[in-house]
Amino acid sequence: MKLNDHLYTDTGWDFYEREFDPEQIVTTGSNFMIGNGYMGYRGTFAEWGADRYVACVVTDTWDAAEPGKLTELCNVPNPLYLQVRVDGDSLSAFSGNTQAYERSMDLRCGRFSRQATWAGNSGNRVTIEEEKFASYDNVHLLAMRYRVTAEDDAEVSIMTGIDGRVWSISGEHFSAVNGGTEGDTADLISMDVTTVQDQVAICVAEGINLSGVTPVHTTLRQVQRRVFRELTFQMKAGDCLVLEKFAAIYHSNEVARPHDEAVAAVNRVKAQGYDAALEAHKAYWDRIWAVSDIQIEGDLESQLLARFNVFHNIIHTPTHDQLPIGARGLSCQVYQGAAFWDQETFNLPMFLYTQPELARHILAYRHATLPGAKRKAKRLGYYGAYFAWTSGKTGDELFPDYFFTDVLTGRPIRNHFNCWQIHISPDITYALWLYYEATGDWAFIEHYGAEMAFEIAQFIVSRVHLKVDKNRYELIRLLGPDEYHENVDNNAYTLYLSHFSLEKALILYQQMQQRAPEALAAIMDRVGIDDTAIAHWEDIVARLYLPKPDPQTGLIEQFDGFFQLEDIRPDDLRQRLIDPSEYWGWPNGIAVNAQVLKQADLLQLFAMLDIFPPDVLRANFEYYEPRTEHGSSLSPSVHALIATKAGLPEQAWQYFKEAATIDLYAKSKKVMSGGSFLGGIHTAACGGIWLAIVRGFAGFEIHDGDLVFNPQLPAAWKALRFPLTFRNNHLSVYLSESEVVVRADDNNAETLTVRVGEKAQSVAAGESIDAPI
Amino acid sequence: MKLNDHLYTDTGWDFYEREFDPEQIVTTGSNFMIGNGYMGYRGTFAEWGADRYVACVVTDTWDAAEPGKLTELCNVPNPLYLQVRVDGDSLSAFSGNTQAYERSMDLRCGRFSRQATWAGNSGNRVTIEEEKFASYDNVHLLAMRYRVTAEDDAEVSIMTGIDGRVWSISGEHFSAVNGGTEGDTADLISMDVTTVQDQVAICVAEGINLSGVTPVHTTLRQVQRRVFRELTFQMKAGDCLVLEKFAAIYHSNEVARPHDEAVAAVNRVKAQGYDAALEAHKAYWDRIWAVSDIQIEGDLESQLLARFNVFHNIIHTPTHDQLPIGARGLSCQVYQGAAFWDQETFNLPMFLYTQPELARHILAYRHATLPGAKRKAKRLGYYGAYFAWTSGKTGDELFPDYFFTDVLTGRPIRNHFNCWQIHISPDITYALWLYYEATGDWAFIEHYGAEMAFEIAQFIVSRVHLKVDKNRYELIRLLGPDEYHENVDNNAYTLYLSHFSLEKALILYQQMQQRAPEALAAIMDRVGIDDTAIAHWEDIVARLYLPKPDPQTGLIEQFDGFFQLEDIRPDDLRQRLIDPSEYWGWPNGIAVNAQVLKQADLLQLFAMLDIFPPDVLRANFEYYEPRTEHGSSLSPSVHALIATKAGLPEQAWQYFKEAATIDLYAKSKKVMSGGSFLGGIHTAACGGIWLAIVRGFAGFEIHDGDLVFNPQLPAAWKALRFPLTFRNNHLSVYLSESEVVVRADDNNAETLTVRVGEKAQSVAAGESIDAPI
Repeated sequence: MKLNDHLYTDTGWDFYEREFDPEQIVTTGSNFMIGNGYMGYRGTFAEWGADRYVACVVTDTWDAAEPGKLTELCNVPNPLYLQVRVDGDSLSAFSGNTQAYERSMDLRCGRFSRQATWAGNSGNRVTIEEEKFASYDNVHLLAMRYRVTAEDDAEVSIMTGIDGRVWSISGEHFSAVNGGTEGDTADLISMDVTTVQDQVAICVAEGINLSGVTPVHTTLRQVQRRVFRELTFQMKAGDCLVLEKFAAIYHSNEVARPHDEAVAAVNRVKAQGYDAALEAHKAYWDRIWAVSDIQIEGDLESQLLARFNVFHNIIHTPTHDQLPIGARGLSCQVYQGAAFWDQETFNLPMFLYTQPELARHILAYRHATLPGAKRKAKRLGYYGAYFAWTSGKTGDELFPDYFFTDVLTGRPIRNHFNCWQIHISPDITYALWLYYEATGDWAFIEHYGAEMAFEIAQFIVSRVHLKVDKNRYELIRLLGPDEYHENVDNNAYTLYLSHFSLEKALILYQQMQQRAPEALAAIMDRVGIDDTAIAHWEDIVARLYLPKPDPQTGLIEQFDGFFQLEDIRPDDLRQRLIDPSEYWGWPNGIAVNAQVLKQADLLQLFAMLDIFPPDVLRANFEYYEPRTEHGSSLSPSVHALIATKAGLPEQAWQYFKEAATIDLYAKSKKVMSGGSFLGGIHTAACGGIWLAIVRGFAGFEIHDGDLVFNPQLPAAWKALRFPLTFRNNHLSVYLSESEVVVRADDNNAETLTVRVGEKAQSVAAGESIDAPI
Repeated sequence: MKLNDHLYTDTGWDFYEREFDPEQIVTTGSNFMIGNGYMGYRGTFAEWGADRYVACVVTDTWDAAEPGKLTELCNVPNPLYLQVRVDGDSLSAFSGNTQAYERSMDLRCGRFSRQATWAGNSGNRVTIEEEKFASYDNVHLLAMRYRVTAEDDAEVSIMTGIDGRVWSISGEHFSAVNGGTEGDTADLISMDVTTVQDQVAICVAEGINLSGVTPVHTTLRQVQRRVFRELTFQMKAGDCLVLEKFAAIYHSNEVARPHDEAVAAVNRVKAQGYDAALEAHKAYWDRIWAVSDIQIEGDLESQLLARFNVFHNIIHTPTHDQLPIGARGLSCQVYQGAAFWDQETFNLPMFLYTQPELARHILAYRHATLPGAKRKAKRLGYYGAYFAWTSGKTGDELFPDYFFTDVLTGRPIRNHFNCWQIHISPDITYALWLYYEATGDWAFIEHYGAEMAFEIAQFIVSRVHLKVDKNRYELIRLLGPDEYHENVDNNAYTLYLSHFSLEKALILYQQMQQRAPEALAAIMDRVGIDDTAIAHWEDIVARLYLPKPDPQTGLIEQFDGFFQLEDIRPDDLRQRLIDPSEYWGWPNGIAVNAQVLKQADLLQLFAMLDIFPPDVLRANFEYYEPRTEHGSSLSPSVHALIATKAGLPEQAWQYFKEAATIDLYAKSKKVMSGGSFLGGIHTAACGGIWLAIVRGFAGFEIHDGDLVFNPQLPAAWKALRFPLTFRNNHLSVYLSESEVVVRADDNNAETLTVRVGEKAQSVAAGESIDAPI
């Protein structure tokens, strides 16, 4: 079916285009990208270079080109470079004569394909078929198979090797670049680079298997930062040559000898061959989809969109180590490959119920950054763990004091994301608690979780103020989820999350007292607290200000004084822009003194804590939604979720479609703005789609350990099916207009309770329940 | 002697110019102005109109031309308008031939004089002598004497009457204007106007006495907003005509029938004549100077400057009613004729020790605005008395939310002077306490002071936050005296003043318990507090955070985090200006993130509370002074004072000269900026000069009721002499390099203790002490 004016799907697993649009190379490079949590390789063409945003971004390679420049992940030298020439003309999407073009993505195994029949000045045609994947069998591997079929007799040459001329948003990250061949032959080419800041050694190696046609001659070329072979073939019509290309990437943050490891890995996979490598990779994806796939009956577009978003939430999440999920994942260097609060609130929930071991990874990553979080707290005059707003390897704050520039004056703007947006810390306790609830993983709590929760509780202690005359604790000078309003007091979202995190810290403290008193003593010692601190947590839990819904209107004020700001709608406010690229927020943007939100703020709270009744959700949705500008990709999916819960199906559907297509249907001609690359996958929106479907349309909640479903499917959907993992038990959930069917896996250890409407039913291993709606 | 390139003084009481500079009419209009606390009449020429900034600003006539426009005092119709014509040519400073020009000011009685010999096209010369004063005998009166002496035979005509074509900064304030003559003759002309907002009726009436030459004919003209007579004379060389002109101004905020009162007053003074009116006025000034005059031996320039500043501190202070002292006094409409904190901290101290009844007036004015202050507190979510940052008649906040405009973008700026600059309230308790200390006026405390102190204490209660983990109260989100830094925490100035104000509220509470328990009960009832509140004051006094000098460096941080801001000097910072008229402060001005102060902040604290030793003053002076931009006229006098106390005589002298000449030596060609008139007298600087001399060079302090002198006179001064009033006792103080002589008035009721150095001596009535230094 046709998805939009340029994209198609046939199966709901694939999407493809049949026209190449040179204006969209930034967007398509992201949408057709491949990745495996270790690296992201953009969905570009083999013959392209840095000017067309080819990139292979590798996690755990953070570097700052020079002091004051942004710390970001490296784009490593491109080992899949391959340029075909036909009778001396370079094959190109921009010249010559192209026919039968198609670029496609197979989401079932994360495989990129491209094909075309092309002729240059000679008029002799070749058909090329390019496909590639980033292996989950060995995450250091990229594999490509490139077929050239001669449609006419022609001299075909192929230049392939490593192109080290990479682009980088914030400066040159390589202080040394050494490319060459391994041994006497040109079979294996490598390029070793070293980062500027920490001298991380990165090796990119590649090797090829050639079959079908034998080259008449082979030349090795080494020019500046490029090392490649030139293979020349005299092809007859009908000849088909197949070039398998394998690349391995290793770096010294993970292995002692990246060069040796990369060479050995390439040699291994070369011996194995492309098909075998692909099979091993596919087997991994089969296992992932078995626990993750969302199936939608009756709406092929929604089916594809659901899988596209789930797919991206997966491929940007590191599986090989405890590392963050970047806000643009591994799709580019934007947002520094670093984690934001999105990680816990948008990306992680899906993994809790699909691949909880990855959720554990994500949280263990945060535990590993506790020293950085404590340094940040201390630097700002607090204590405990104040997690980085922009968190890389160490958890030290990567967000610069001056991020935006006032486009009207050219002056840098001192934004306060890195010092006032304190909700990042309680957000982590929130995720931690959800993980504990979803897995019952006490070992994690004992070894990691309790300490994190306590350090976060201590941070909140250091951050609250007691308003003695009102007998309540307050949180002053905040930046809530709505980033247009810096410097606000008593942001409801932050208050509730902080309260939640202290409550849970106290529960964990009590459980630790019961179950692991010695470990508790050691943690208390590390954190540097005694019972006084616990008493303080209790006091704050008892007296922290929690703004309640107004009894008349049901409204909760986003922060103190929000309702006194100018009441104007986003589209009217927009008229005040002097320059369309102005920042709307701090310090003097058009939204600062207006009731216009960048993104869900109070609704974000509703998306996370199921503590308010539907009429409160509805009243607040109806108040805040028209005032929301959706300047963040985090916003639409939350609106879809809350609209569903508030009984507003039309708005839910509209926001679902908006959220699900943020990347796939994006139409942007703008490639760069203010010196920044604009592309990249909005990973939080991807995670948000899982939430909108499972927590929204399926109405999945957990209450007292029961799995609750309250489905409200979109009208276009006949049925919805997805797997869930809960406390190591596996379930298959099927929802339609009339029934909820939950089937427990034969191997489940526990009998679970499922609630649909008022009715609770038990599901033991191998059983299924069928609840009419 | 020559003071600067255009001004002279002969006696230290006068100053004059002998060249007319058309570029300086804004400045000279202020410097040569006359006034009496009821009205200010700019030192312009009789024939000028609104285009040359003629203005008669009358207090208690606040009006807003329309909603959203600034509330300001009215410029009333000009009753001293007088245009001479010679042989048909209008006498003008801008045309014809002028000789023997002089404009002078006699500070001893606040009399403006101007004279010139002038000829038009006919070449026939006249000499004019214009003099005028604003009467202290009856503050509603202006008097002018205008002499014309024919040097050659000429036809001279005089047009004189009321010119209602006034200028106004923020729009038209008169909804009705009615001019005409009184009775059948043109002897008395009046103009009645009505303000837009509150329909205040203002009447301006004038009458003339003519002698010397008889007009050949007289015509009455009424054109638009002007009513005047045209008198024509055929003069022979040597003829001298004298026109005495008397004007009275009354308005309906003070009297029921302003028109009748004005007419009657003009008739009375006409009958009395100019000389008699001047004598009565002079007698008042003699009494003022007897208690206020500062005499400096050895430096005539300093002598004149001291008197100029004391004079202006006097003439802008209402004596007839409880009204505020405007930040530009009555010199123009700038700053809305309203009081700022300057009133209590700069203007009032001089009156405490010279005319304490005026200090009482100023404080009673604040008491009268308590309802406005309570409304402001309530509106912002607090309680108690949060006095207006810009305070007019009612004490409701006159400062707009949007005051400045970002000149780079044209966007209004939301400054927070009206909501975060909370020190205004404790500043009033400070002044109240000083008044009580200087006068012992228990009746004032009982009827006004205690209630004010309690309401202010309650405001502070509503504003503090307890940092439980640090066991201290804090003040969050402040704007201290340094207005470039909005949104700061724990500004030292604000903390210390708040602490002082609570301490004094507690003392007053205890004294009220002893001396006036019934009045106390009534006040507590009005304020709405009981003993719980008193306990809360005590708790805050005990635990309010008071930043102490660093033991190593002696430095006190201006606010939390100040020392972490970029350390750059004002002149270097200035290089970053894109437009020279940019505002340096909030939200994104060049000083916001820099250690650059607009004005004294911590030093301002030192100027008010004598609680730190000289080495701390010195360390902080040396740190903060180079970082101060002096963007406020409040800054130099404080620097003079603190430099003196810190033992830095050269800097003291330099800042004294700067402060004392802010207005008199001002050289500005800019008349208007961003639609605002720039002229006007900086009244706080005038009060600051008294402080710099008496609290600085004379080292006058009060400790435990003793009068302490620690003189450090400038090298150029041989001696300094000034009167002091203390608890209704009068003293004459004489200080030289070698001795301090204090003489007590014969009629003193109390024996006072005077301390010089370590030595304390008693001075009974009629005695004097002579302490060597």
